[in-house]
Amino acid sequence: MEKVRILEIKQSVFANNDRQAELLRRELKERGLFLLNLMSSPGSGKTTTLTRLIEALAGELAIGVMEADIDSDVDARTIAKTGVKTIQLHTGGMCHLDAAMTRQGLEGLDPGALDLVVLENVGNLVCPAEFDTGAVKSMAILSVPEGHDKPLKYPLMFQVVDAVVINKVDVMPYFDFDLEKCTEYIRLRNPKAEIFPISAKTGQGVEALAQWLKNQVKTWKET
Amino acid sequence: MEKVRILEIKQSVFANNDRQAELLRRELKERGLFLLNLMSSPGSGKTTTLTRLIEALAGELAIGVMEADIDSDVDARTIAKTGVKTIQLHTGGMCHLDAAMTRQGLEGLDPGALDLVVLENVGNLVCPAEFDTGAVKSMAILSVPEGHDKPLKYPLMFQVVDAVVINKVDVMPYFDFDLEKCTEYIRLRNPKAEIFPISAKTGQGVEALAQWLKNQVKTWKET
Repeated sequence: MEKVRILEIKQSVFANNDRQAELLRRELKERGLFLLNLMSSPGSGKTTTLTRLIEALAGELAIGVMEADIDSDVDARTIAKTGVKTIQLHTGGMCHLDAAMTRQGLEGLDPGALDLVVLENVGNLVCPAEFDTGAVKSMAILSVPEGHDKPLKYPLMFQVVDAVVINKVDVMPYFDFDLEKCTEYIRLRNPKAEIFPISAKTGQGVEALAQWLKNQVKTWKET
Repeated sequence: MEKVRILEIKQSVFANNDRQAELLRRELKERGLFLLNLMSSPGSGKTTTLTRLIEALAGELAIGVMEADIDSDVDARTIAKTGVKTIQLHTGGMCHLDAAMTRQGLEGLDPGALDLVVLENVGNLVCPAEFDTGAVKSMAILSVPEGHDKPLKYPLMFQVVDAVVINKVDVMPYFDFDLEKCTEYIRLRNPKAEIFPISAKTGQGVEALAQWLKNQVKTWKET
């Protein structure tokens, strides 16, 4: 069984989260470190998608992962097997991370010369969307079994992200999921979001997603 | 297109939610009305399960439904098609309902001589578990595509409910879902929870669930 570090995150005392987030982002810029905030419902495939991305970007980017969960370390153990630097963050029951909590996580991870750190946020389509973590970009995963109407019911999540991954397209034949409608509903909330249909299980579509992420990291470091 | 009433719920001002919940439960007891709090992740099949239960209990119980969502009225329109009394509650971005908000919903629904009202809570495995809504019983749905490890990662939800529905068992062959492990993880959190594996899509297992619910309502009204 993989051993992973577990960090108990303290609740943030900063009233002005937006300011804390901007501060963190500025520091990340100075260090040339890209932070991605990855959000979704429980069970949409955040960890599996991340595992695929780590494989696809191996040798190209030095990656670290912060796994935020209320309890357990199952995800951090899965990620640790890929060989990347990993830390498990326990939120003590809290449904999201804010910028000050993300900063605690980064200090615990100690990113050193990493290019990219992914924060796997608590599985929740509501609360994490309300808090700027200080990440450079945010991404939401919506999986086919959840249904194509989710952007209508959880508008803020789809509004605040830069990219939406539609995962588990391999099981599309077994669900009433309309990709065209889903795209239309996402566009209603967020005309500029990049949309990536993938199957983290089979690997379908992962290359395009990895390419997008690589470009984002490159742009952040170079401009 | 079905027309449904939409009620904008106001944030609760009561500090002591547990007391409000007890008060509401006592009033429900006096009226002989059973309130079920139905919770799950987004897309686990709350609305489809509810539609099946309404079919199964037709002619036996007079049912009403309160659909809580951050936005949209897609679920309330689906439920309205079954012919039962329905209201859509909008939470104004909030991730859960508490007892005072549930009371507002009940007043809006106006249950009259109903036997059973189901509150379909906001799709979220974290926050709704923290607030007693005043319901007589609570039920969580976990769907097969979400994975069997969810009771480890969202412990409180599985701890506070009286029953867990494992939905979408019809797609079990396409996912790495271990029903035995899932049952074991639920039992770790909650040795007394009733567990119902069902497919709301095919109807498999719905009869046993409907029977359990009917017995709960009967006991509440008679004792």
